[in-house]
Formats: sequence, structure tokens, C-alpha cells
Amino acid sequence: MGVGLEVRIALGQFNAVVGDLPGNIEKMKGLWARAVESGADLVLFPELAICGYPPEDLVYKRQFLDDNRSAVETLAAACPEKTVVAGFVESVNGTAFNAAAVIQDGRIAETYQKCELPNYGVFDERRYFKPGHRPVVIEVGGLNIAITICEDLWETDWLRRLFADADPFDLLINLSASPFHLGKLDERGRIIGRSIKAFDCAVAYCNLVGGQDELVFDGQSILADSTGQIVTKAKAFDEDLLIADIERSGDRVTISPAVPPAAQPEGPLDEVYRALVLGTRDYTRKNGFRKVLLGISGGIDSAVTAAIAVAALGAENVQGITMPSRFNSPETIADSQKVADNLGFALLTIPIEPILTPFNKSLEADPSWNDKGLAYENLQARIRGTILMSLSNQTGALVLTTGNKSETSVGYSTLYGDTAGGFAVIKDVPKTLVYRLAAYMNERAGRELIPADVITRPPSAELRPDQKDADSLPDYDLLDRIIKGYVEQDKSARELVESGLPAAEVQRVIRLIDRTEYKRRQSPPGVRITPKAFGKDRRLPITNRYATTITKP
Amino acid sequence: MGVGLEVRIALGQFNAVVGDLPGNIEKMKGLWARAVESGADLVLFPELAICGYPPEDLVYKRQFLDDNRSAVETLAAACPEKTVVAGFVESVNGTAFNAAAVIQDGRIAETYQKCELPNYGVFDERRYFKPGHRPVVIEVGGLNIAITICEDLWETDWLRRLFADADPFDLLINLSASPFHLGKLDERGRIIGRSIKAFDCAVAYCNLVGGQDELVFDGQSILADSTGQIVTKAKAFDEDLLIADIERSGDRVTISPAVPPAAQPEGPLDEVYRALVLGTRDYTRKNGFRKVLLGISGGIDSAVTAAIAVAALGAENVQGITMPSRFNSPETIADSQKVADNLGFALLTIPIEPILTPFNKSLEADPSWNDKGLAYENLQARIRGTILMSLSNQTGALVLTTGNKSETSVGYSTLYGDTAGGFAVIKDVPKTLVYRLAAYMNERAGRELIPADVITRPPSAELRPDQKDADSLPDYDLLDRIIKGYVEQDKSARELVESGLPAAEVQRVIRLIDRTEYKRRQSPPGVRITPKAFGKDRRLPITNRYATTITKP
Repeated sequence: MGVGLEVRIALGQFNAVVGDLPGNIEKMKGLWARAVESGADLVLFPELAICGYPPEDLVYKRQFLDDNRSAVETLAAACPEKTVVAGFVESVNGTAFNAAAVIQDGRIAETYQKCELPNYGVFDERRYFKPGHRPVVIEVGGLNIAITICEDLWETDWLRRLFADADPFDLLINLSASPFHLGKLDERGRIIGRSIKAFDCAVAYCNLVGGQDELVFDGQSILADSTGQIVTKAKAFDEDLLIADIERSGDRVTISPAVPPAAQPEGPLDEVYRALVLGTRDYTRKNGFRKVLLGISGGIDSAVTAAIAVAALGAENVQGITMPSRFNSPETIADSQKVADNLGFALLTIPIEPILTPFNKSLEADPSWNDKGLAYENLQARIRGTILMSLSNQTGALVLTTGNKSETSVGYSTLYGDTAGGFAVIKDVPKTLVYRLAAYMNERAGRELIPADVITRPPSAELRPDQKDADSLPDYDLLDRIIKGYVEQDKSARELVESGLPAAEVQRVIRLIDRTEYKRRQSPPGVRITPKAFGKDRRLPITNRYATTITKP
Repeated sequence: MGVGLEVRIALGQFNAVVGDLPGNIEKMKGLWARAVESGADLVLFPELAICGYPPEDLVYKRQFLDDNRSAVETLAAACPEKTVVAGFVESVNGTAFNAAAVIQDGRIAETYQKCELPNYGVFDERRYFKPGHRPVVIEVGGLNIAITICEDLWETDWLRRLFADADPFDLLINLSASPFHLGKLDERGRIIGRSIKAFDCAVAYCNLVGGQDELVFDGQSILADSTGQIVTKAKAFDEDLLIADIERSGDRVTISPAVPPAAQPEGPLDEVYRALVLGTRDYTRKNGFRKVLLGISGGIDSAVTAAIAVAALGAENVQGITMPSRFNSPETIADSQKVADNLGFALLTIPIEPILTPFNKSLEADPSWNDKGLAYENLQARIRGTILMSLSNQTGALVLTTGNKSETSVGYSTLYGDTAGGFAVIKDVPKTLVYRLAAYMNERAGRELIPADVITRPPSAELRPDQKDADSLPDYDLLDRIIKGYVEQDKSARELVESGLPAAEVQRVIRLIDRTEYKRRQSPPGVRITPKAFGKDRRLPITNRYATTITKP
């Protein structure tokens, strides 16, 4: 190792906690020690590893900037051997940079400042950071190594200009905090391939892992050789220390893994499943909760949410509450118990009729009140929300909500009712994907976690007699196609209709989406799994009279 | 008018609605006609007047960009005479610019693209727009007129570089959408003064007016002459058409108002009062509501909120609901009625005991439940929140919440309880300012709108026997000083203690603020009146272990 032009590299893909500078340093110290023990010459940590990503407005606090500097100095002193490259917030005369510290001989030898600052989607980096403009190429064991941070890698033309006057390099490293969404891995592969072509070098891509509010970082750090081949990857959705030897031989840079390859996700459903599990576990634990509770209706959304919670936290940390009314069928009541039994969590029954009756009676103080309309349906949902929040306040368990992306889009939910809770596990999962996920989880478990009845019964909110989702909403296949086009792809009504979707349904669904922004604004965060989730990804005014119409204005 | 080097200018300070392109154009057409009738040569409209400000992610919709173009062409065709300068979103090969259209002879003669794009505080302009880089100086009636948009004006050095090679000009116009906060007017005066000094010109500053979600644009458009004197201003918090003659005489540019001066706010309390009234009126009406309802507790927060609502919408559109329990004193129950009587709105009484008792009984299904703790207090607040939301769903009235900035900061509130509603009128008003506002409103009215008892009684949530806010929180004077330092100025615990605040209270309050981010995230929007409100102004992660400590780490 380290002989001639061979360098052993270690990618420390770890789960940083935003703001926990001492905790993050401890983790890095441990990984550094393991890496050095394994003979590594160069140890990488992700983008903003010191403070976690994204720190958001913490960057506006001067003490936070000072603390970042102290923390990276503490890390440097604790890593007296070899080369370490780790992300932190650097402050120069009060200006903040998204930076990488190059630590050699126990001190900060050099820093690189990220040049390309994403300011779209969930990213607000121009709010906090100034862009750097100086390339940094370091030398380790005779190899020249160029440093980049996340977005820097995504624009090859720009990268070519940055390194135009720099020394040629054998390895391009990229410290990343790249959040997961469906299809993201392919994108990463493509941009890494482009960089390799442009610079004729190998690439070491070190990604963050873990859940942070709505984001899940999936890890899957990458080592690719100078032919463009992805030679090895770190674990998906878990911490890992990926070690390999990098060698310059002639005009090629080869990579030889020093650890066995990590198992990779089996496909998109497995990725979504693991993202939801990790996102739920991290939101819960990083916010100091051990237990969760949720309403179990006998429907598929609460069953899938419960299954994710059990996988994330263990059945012993999940408490189900079923809250039947006279509108619930005997079948759904029985299925609630079956879901709990199959998944192994405790289920408490609190019927709502003894509360609903006097509540309704009190509301008759307003002469316009009636027990036949939407207000009465919402009342039932709010009584349930209040039961869950009361038990949460009493027991210290976090309430998980169970709404999917389809109903979140069209506002088919009761604010402060079924939307009441701390974390919305499947809020970015369209209903059609909820069904596929249920089938996948059953297949994965090799048994019926989600009862077959729950999957096949037509969905209903059961807030009035014989209610079915299909009475209020289009068929979910159609609904999800409209949502994908309108929400995720920003298509207009006209474009959707021209792509073959029925005009009346398009107009109706878009109107519902536009009019229910206020509900989403007050909803809890949840795991982002699509390229555009509700939350920081999609920022629309509540007060908004813009109407996309099918006919030209 | 228009003879020699004299130009009559009209500043069309109007209340645009975000997304309502046809409605905004109609308003501009009307103002243009009035301006031309008054002999104006040049008519200005605010930044993004065509689509309202801020359009947020509407800018990501291609059809919205096309619609902006069509709308500005429609406006041009409707203004066949004189010169009009109006803000709109310009799209060039798919890239969006925050632009000003110069309309002459009924067509778009020229466009200017905003160069300085704010991306801090409540602003996200780099998310949407590319910066322009080209100065635009037009000629009207022999005067040279330079065009800028909002933030462009705030950096004089930069502005000097932009206009370095341009023709010298007599008048600098600035189309603005500058939101109100306390102290903003002084800032505007200073930057206008700096520009006048730099360019030896007059300034015409045309600001937007109206409420948009959390923002209130205050109008107060300004005309300043080349000596730096602010000669005249448009109305505050209202639409206005400000008309004046601008004349070049020798090396001075003078301004002679052609309309009588508008009354200006009497001071900061009057500004806050009018911002709250306008913000509440516009949020309500622009979102299609005519009536509001709110819980009236007999305390000062709900009394002040009700007084604002009555001023904004008329007493006939305000419905109070008082929801006493056994913990409410006879005095506060009587004061609820007194508040309603003084302000002239209807009050409905719905006692919560008949709901609370069975609710509590049902919750005993969980053996850990008890009726002595915080959960039981929150239950009362949630029953009240559900009553208000039920009546809102039934009647179509918008629920106003009554929490102030002090309690919003420390989370002294019940999520889905007293925070349940569509608009949080005083969420950015610290408790100490709530008291001053109450006194001001009584003085302004010349009678007791807010009963004296309500102002003098020690504040209490009345959720348990003999409860007082002072049992849980520091004195409000101290609390508000800590909040101002920590929230608005991003000071660290150490800096706050060094400035003379007591260490134990500082640490306790900061901890409360940090730990209740999740509550604020699910709270309704409300009027921003300080330099930093909760909402888009302050973006902190919920999952956040950063702890600012008094001792050096």
C-alpha cells in the first residue's frame, strides 16, 4: 500500500446529525482510526460532514461558523496521520463557504470552496454561501487528486474551465450530500461518466447517508476507474467504510476494492422501502423519540405506514390506535386487528362515538350546524387526531400520519384530523405506489404483513355511510398521472390534455391541487422519494389566483 | 405639461393579486386612463405588477411565462399613448428574468432585466431568475430616465458600475415590491439618498401595496428631488396614484406635486396597526373568504386580534366564539362578552365541559392517561380548535388564530389547538407590543375597544386552576428581549449574556425556541411586521442538535 503510484483510499460514508458537531467528529474519528488500521492513505468524508446537511439558517449564526472552525481543528488534531478531506462551513471575514478541509499531519493544510451552489428544488445554497473560484489539486502518494463538492461535478463544461490551468490529476474526488429520489442513482452514474471522459481520471464519490427532515441521503458512494466503469459502491441507506486501492498504470487509473462489495438495492421498490424506513427511523430518533403511535383504520395507507414503522423502530416501539365509529364496517375493524397481529404491534381501541355524540350536540349551539355534511366528516377525523395527540403528549411517543401523496395533492384529508402528527411517512408516495409497496413488503417478508383484504378492498375514508374514495376522486391510476404531470413536471392543463388525459378530470384535479396549498403548508414533514415532493421542493403561494386553463387565454 | 424639459409622472401604486394576470391588467388600465387624463407623460407600475409579487414556483411553469408575455402585450395595446413602465416576468429562451417593460406607442419598446436578485430573508429570487447586466436609459419629454428594479437600488457601488458607460440621466426610477417591517421606511430613505448623491438625479420609487400570505407591501411610493429631499409620498397601506411634475433646471432636477400630499402613518404603532389590518383583509378576501371567526378567551391576544379583524372586515363579518371551561374565571368570561360588545361583533358561547368530560373518559382506555398534566391542558385547547374548525367548515368563515410572537417563539401553545386556523394575525407581534397596540387602538378610537381589565389582568392560559403565564415563562419584557436577540439578530447565548441578560433565563428560552421548531412549521401564516418573522424569513431544520452555549465549547 502507498508504494509507488498506488494509494489506498477510504470513503467514510456516515450518518451525520445536523448541528451535532461533537457527535459528528466522534464518528469521523472512529472511521479514520479504522481506515488507518486498514492501511488507508486518504480518508474522505461527505459534504458538510462536520455540521450535517443542510444546516439551513444555522449558517446565519456567527457562533455556528466559529464552532465549525473549532470542530474541524479538533478533527485535524485527532487525525495526526495520513490525509483526510472533510466538508465543513468555512467562514472568511464573515462570508460563509461550503468548503472541504484537507487535513495533513494533523493540521488543515488547504481548503477548497464549493463553486457551483445549487439554489433550486430543495436547495437554498445561494442563501448562505458565496461561490469559490479556485481549483484545488493535492498530491497523495504520488497521485494528483482534484477536489470537488457535490454540484461542482454536475456541470462538466464548467468543471473543465475550473481546472483549465490546474495540474492534471489522476483522481477526482467529490464530497457529496446528495438526497435520494427515484432515478437519482442513474443520474449520478451519468455525471460521473461524463467527468471521467472529460479528465481521463478515476472518480471517488463520497456521499452522506441518513434522514434529515424531509430528505434521505442514500449513501451508495461510488468508486469508478478511468475507463468509466463503476468498480465498487458502498452500502445503500446505511453507514459504510468503502476501501480500495487506486493505481496509475500507464494512461489508466485502476481501482481494486479492498473490501467485499456491499449488497445493492434490488430495484426501485426496494429503494423506496429502504428510504422510507431510514427516513422514519432517523426523524424519530434524531428528534429524541423512541416510540411512535399511529391510527390504524383497516385501510392500506395506515397498514403500510405501520409496516414501515415496525421495520424502522421494531414492533415493540409502535403503538396502534384504532378509533372506530358507526361508519366503519366490521371488515375494516377486523382488518385493523389483523394488521397489528401480522406486524406484531400493540393495538388499543378507542371508539369515537362517545365523544362524537356530545361534540355534535354542543356544536348545535350554532343553528347552521348539521350532522350530514363535510363538517361532520371532518369532526370525526379531528376527534381521532386529538386522541392521537393526547396519547402522544401523555406517553412521549411521536405521532405518525398516514396520508399518501395522491390525497395530499388534492387535499383529500382533514387538517388537524388525519394530518395531525409529527411525521408523514408516505406523504410523497402516490397511492398506486402504496399498493405496489404493500405487495413488495409482503413478498420481501415471505408472508402476509399487509392482509390481502386490505390490498383488495376499494379505498374509503369511512366518514359517512357507504363512502368510497371513487365518489370524490378519479380512479387512482389517472389521478397519479395527473399529479405527476402537474406537480412533479410543472405541466399546464393544456399540455396534460394534449398528452391524452381527459380534460374534465385534469381541470378538476388541478383545481383541487391549487386550492389546497394551505393544508399542505400546515402538514408535517415526510420522506421525499420523488424528484419533486411537497415541502421545500415546491414553493407556491397560498394566496394565488393563477389558473392554468386548457384553452388559450 | 411635457413642454421643454418638464415631464409629468404618475406612480400607479396598486394592490396586485398574485397570479391574477387579467385582474392586475384591468387595474393598471384604469390607473393609466386616470393618469393620462391628468396629463401624465410617464406612468409607472410596481415590480412584477403583471403577476403580483412574489409569484414563487409559478415561475417554473412554462405557461405562466407565456401568460406573462401575453398579459404585458395586452397591457401595451390598451395603453396606446404616453410611456408606461411595468414589471413582469420575461422569458428569453426558457430563462426567466424579473423585468420591466417600457411601453411606448402601444407596444413594448424595450425591457430592462433586474440585475441584483435578493436571495436572503423572505426572498428566493436566485431560485427563479437570472440576473440581467444591461443598463436601460430611456428618454421621455427630453429627460433621460434610468430604470431599476427594487434591490438594484440598494447597492450604490454596483449601480455606479452598471451605469458607468450609459448616458447620464435626470431621473432614476425604481419599480419595487418592498415588504413592510418596522424601520423599513428609514432604510428606503437612506438608500434613495445615496443614489441621488451618486447620480445627481431625482428618484421615483414606485412600490407595491397589499397583503400576500405573510408579506404586507406598504406602498408609500416616493418622489425625491436631486438635492436628496423627499418631496412627496403616496399613501401608506392603500392604493394611490401619485402625480408630480419633474423638471430639469440648470443642474437641479425639481419635483412639483400635482396632487395634495397623502396622510402618512403617525408612528410605528400606527404602521403596525395598519399593516395588520391590511394583511388580514387581503389574506381573507384574496383567498375568497368574506367572514372570519375566532375564539375569544377574555385575554388580550384574542381581543387585539378581534379588533384588527373588525377594522379589516367590519364587525358584521366577525364571529366570536367563547368556549369556557371550569378553569375560566368569571372575570374572563365576562370580559369575552365585553370585548364583543365594545367591538360590536356577535359572540356565541359553547362550553367545553360537555365534550371534555366524555373525551377524558375515553382516553382512560390508555392506562397512563391522567387529567392533571400537560396532555389534559392540550386536550382542552384541541377541543376548542376543533369547535372553531367545525364551525369554519360549516359556515365557510376563515378561522383566525390569536397567538403572539412571544408564545410562538417558545412554543407556549397547543399544536392543532390554539394554533388551528387559517391566518395568524399577530404571530409576529411580541407580547409587549401587543399591549402597546391595545393601548394605541383604544387611544385611536377615543374609547375603550379593548377593556381596561383585559389589559391589566396578568396573562393566563386558564387550562388548570390558578395558572399564570409567569409560572412557565420569564417576564414578557425579558422574554421579548431574548427573542429579539436570538431570533431576529441571530445572537448566540454568550452574546446575549454579555449584553446583560440573565444566563439561566437565556439558556432556558433559547432551548424552548430551538425545540419548538416543529410547532411553528405547522402553524398558519401571519403578517410579518419585524425584520425577521417566522416563516420564509427563518429557515431552521426541525432535526437539529445545534446548541448555542454560554461557555466556549
